[in-house]
Amino acid sequence: MPTISRKGLEMPESPIRKLVPFAELAKKKGHKVYHLNIGQPDIKTPQVALDAVKNANIEVLEYSHSAGFESYREKLSQYYKNQNLPIDAQNIIITTGGSEALLFALGSTMDTDDEIIIPEPFYANYNGFSVASGVKIVPVISSIESGFALPPIEEFEKLITPKTKAILICNPGNPTGYLYSEGEINQLAEIVQKHDLFLIADEVYREFTYDGYQHHSVMNVAGLENHAIMIDSVSKRFSMCGARIGCIVSKNKDVMAAAMKFAQARLSPPTYAQIASEAALDTPQSYFDEVIKEYKERRDILVSELEKIEGVVVAVPKGAFYCIAKLPIASANDFAQWLLESFDLNGETVMVAPAAGFYSSPNVGLDEVRIAYVLKKEDLIKSVRILKEALAVYHQYSN
Amino acid sequence: MPTISRKGLEMPESPIRKLVPFAELAKKKGHKVYHLNIGQPDIKTPQVALDAVKNANIEVLEYSHSAGFESYREKLSQYYKNQNLPIDAQNIIITTGGSEALLFALGSTMDTDDEIIIPEPFYANYNGFSVASGVKIVPVISSIESGFALPPIEEFEKLITPKTKAILICNPGNPTGYLYSEGEINQLAEIVQKHDLFLIADEVYREFTYDGYQHHSVMNVAGLENHAIMIDSVSKRFSMCGARIGCIVSKNKDVMAAAMKFAQARLSPPTYAQIASEAALDTPQSYFDEVIKEYKERRDILVSELEKIEGVVVAVPKGAFYCIAKLPIASANDFAQWLLESFDLNGETVMVAPAAGFYSSPNVGLDEVRIAYVLKKEDLIKSVRILKEALAVYHQYSN
Ligand SMILES: Cc1ncc(COP(=O)(O)O)c(C=O)c1O
Ligand SMILES: Cc1ncc(COP(=O)(O)O)c(C=O)c1O
Repeated sequence: MPTISRKGLEMPESPIRKLVPFAELAKKKGHKVYHLNIGQPDIKTPQVALDAVKNANIEVLEYSHSAGFESYREKLSQYYKNQNLPIDAQNIIITTGGSEALLFALGSTMDTDDEIIIPEPFYANYNGFSVASGVKIVPVISSIESGFALPPIEEFEKLITPKTKAILICNPGNPTGYLYSEGEINQLAEIVQKHDLFLIADEVYREFTYDGYQHHSVMNVAGLENHAIMIDSVSKRFSMCGARIGCIVSKNKDVMAAAMKFAQARLSPPTYAQIASEAALDTPQSYFDEVIKEYKERRDILVSELEKIEGVVVAVPKGAFYCIAKLPIASANDFAQWLLESFDLNGETVMVAPAAGFYSSPNVGLDEVRIAYVLKKEDLIKSVRILKEALAVYHQYSN
Repeated sequence: MPTISRKGLEMPESPIRKLVPFAELAKKKGHKVYHLNIGQPDIKTPQVALDAVKNANIEVLEYSHSAGFESYREKLSQYYKNQNLPIDAQNIIITTGGSEALLFALGSTMDTDDEIIIPEPFYANYNGFSVASGVKIVPVISSIESGFALPPIEEFEKLITPKTKAILICNPGNPTGYLYSEGEINQLAEIVQKHDLFLIADEVYREFTYDGYQHHSVMNVAGLENHAIMIDSVSKRFSMCGARIGCIVSKNKDVMAAAMKFAQARLSPPTYAQIASEAALDTPQSYFDEVIKEYKERRDILVSELEKIEGVVVAVPKGAFYCIAKLPIASANDFAQWLLESFDLNGETVMVAPAAGFYSSPNVGLDEVRIAYVLKKEDLIKSVRILKEALAVYHQYSN
């Protein structure tokens, strides 16, 4: 029998994979499970996007241009310009989700065994994309105590080797909700210029910022044109995760030429989804205002309820729709499993994502969980109540 | 300025890339260009698939399961069983086109610098997927003289090294139109079992066979369960190239577990396209009968017209919708460019794909072109007439 690849063995599983059977068991028992573990928003997709697909007159569902519809790229460029991002259509290649954009970015800039520095905790699938691309992640720890601010730039300096090709940030962050300040972005800009590295910024949550904080894009830093690569997606912005449309953006012509060859090999991004994504750009501002208001309220409720629980520490998110909470337990893994396997409050329980899966360093964040606030407020309140009761019982039980 | 990756430099361009500007110039001059160079069918997409998308009631366009809709996988399994292929839903992962299935297959079975043997000429994007995956293609030449039959199995034996992990075939073949016989598939089955290799079969043209020839799938060979990986796609079968739906199929549990991790990292295949693809399975047999009849007529006309031209040799395709023709010229590249740049017959010309781009060995197939018969019969007749006149003029001109 032939054996699979080392890559195939090393590809990581999702941090919540092991919990899925326990969630299924809980549901079989008749328990209701509140999913605090997922990044799938419950927000309605803009009607204008859904209607565009319904009304499309297609006879032959053809491949599109490998870089995506020209019309979509033009309109997207305008969207960015309205946000003060100087991005032309030729700086954009439409991809199958931000996921594919990340793969193209790694493939275009890094070879086997090259190194990429990423502040952790980070979006867990960066691990998978790195294994798939044969590159090595070098983590630099950011901590809940500082609210997951950028680690001191000297920490990055220490990690740079001749094999380092890029720094990857997620801004605002999944799973941290942290939003980098202009000063932090400038520090990163300086270090990548000094060491001739790429700065890849995953900005798929760009629009989700709260409390008047402003987002600072790598596409807006003078002098960074040849270093900056932006990853974007319609998944969260328009609650269109199932479309599978994103893009890779850069002013570096060599990067775009390389990414274009990756794009041509896989022929084109999905046609229906491009129709929806192009139309989504006509979504009225009121939609976003409401969505941001809703997320802000959810965040406020989630954080204030969590902070009422003794021993729980929360890093208040300034953006995206995740937060990391430190719980008064030894193993978030065991606790998350126990919540599904052995606990319920009036027939209800919660599923959380143990945060260790978002760290690349071993044995870090063992007592932390990631909570996504993609549920209705009532459900968030109920969820935190369940968490509180559960912690009390868990302590008795484990003492 | 940071430099891009070696991979990014090595990613091949499409074999017709260099011709595109010349085609644009020809069109600017007002010339009509018949595109014999593309694989985008002009056949109408089944109405049942288009309607399913129009009638879908979506409120939140969500991620699907990473392996694809359970309902689609079940129905697809039934579709295969109706074709006598013993494939269960759990043997299927839905992918973003056959393209992504190929990437998952390479990633799951091969590591950096591992070798894969592929009979050439082959689908040019195998080159791109190999570079992206860091693996090395070892070509084995099949020739127009034998109609692109399987090279003697000893030729494969000679190329097998400790780094060889798989043999990849395309059946029926793009660009050759060759359909492997049962005997040839059995020979391949034997050699992969003997050397513990995977046999990856790209069967995206499975339904396109002519003259009563039968397709023999690797999924139907007893004893090959742990070796066989099938690549499939809705792109050509249902003229739904823009959907971007395919699948990877295997009974090897380790392969499927590894492929599933690649699938999870990129979250899910496109949702709209899965709705269309699932519905497409209800396409009545009459649709296929008509499509096959149409392609067969096109093939017959194309081949008989080409054979009338002195010095042209054609390998009569038994499947798919491509054929390779050897022309009485030294460089198909120069000729193809000249056709666009300097030739027209009453304001019309043709674009062909030089076949050298489908060979991995250097300086092979220099006098061959690939012709796709995805045009209407009248246009094919006109195209061959143009080709004939052009060859006559080209000879005068180059003598
Ligand atoms: C930080 C981050 N980047 C990228 C993605 C990929 O999203 P998509 O491929 O749906 O665009 C996600 C999805 O959750 C994410 O959280
Ligand atoms: C032989 C072969 N395999 C795979 C593909 C990929 O097709 P898709 O990604 O559209 O399924 C093609 C497309 O032309 C092809 O010709």
